[in-house]
Amino acid sequence: MASTKITVNNNGSLKIQGDFEIVDREGNVYDLAGRDVLGLCRCGHSKNKPFCDGSHNGNFQHEAVAFALPPKKV
Amino acid sequence: MASTKITVNNNGSLKIQGDFEIVDREGNVYDLAGRDVLGLCRCGHSKNKPFCDGSHNGNFQHEAVAFALPPKKV
Repeated sequence: MASTKITVNNNGSLKIQGDFEIVDREGNVYDLAGRDVLGLCRCGHSKNKPFCDGSHNGNFQHEAVAFALPPKKV
Repeated sequence: MASTKITVNNNGSLKIQGDFEIVDREGNVYDLAGRDVLGLCRCGHSKNKPFCDGSHNGNFQHEAVAFALPPKKV
């Protein structure tokens, strides 16, 4: 079992839980203040990106159903 | 060091790398075909959600700079 689980919420955020860190492109780490569960914005509307602030409500539609990615190109 | 690293790309995707799994709300697992690095959409425009397909290009602006979240509410 993976140590980090990412749940794709319907019409909403990505729920991240487990053993992870979040960094910007410079490699600077977001201080999560001890959180090991949080929501990341996947709709582009949050005013607190990369974190979810609930702005998806009524503004974003995507029902997530698991599928298989194609094989990696070699 | 965390076993999964999430990099917030500027004007683009979330890069996920490490030991993770991605599931839908029913708990069904996305078959990543062995990938341990991939991009998740954070702009809402991808036609291959939750994965990035490059649709952010020219359509999404967010320069990510790491910051500290407030303390958790008790």
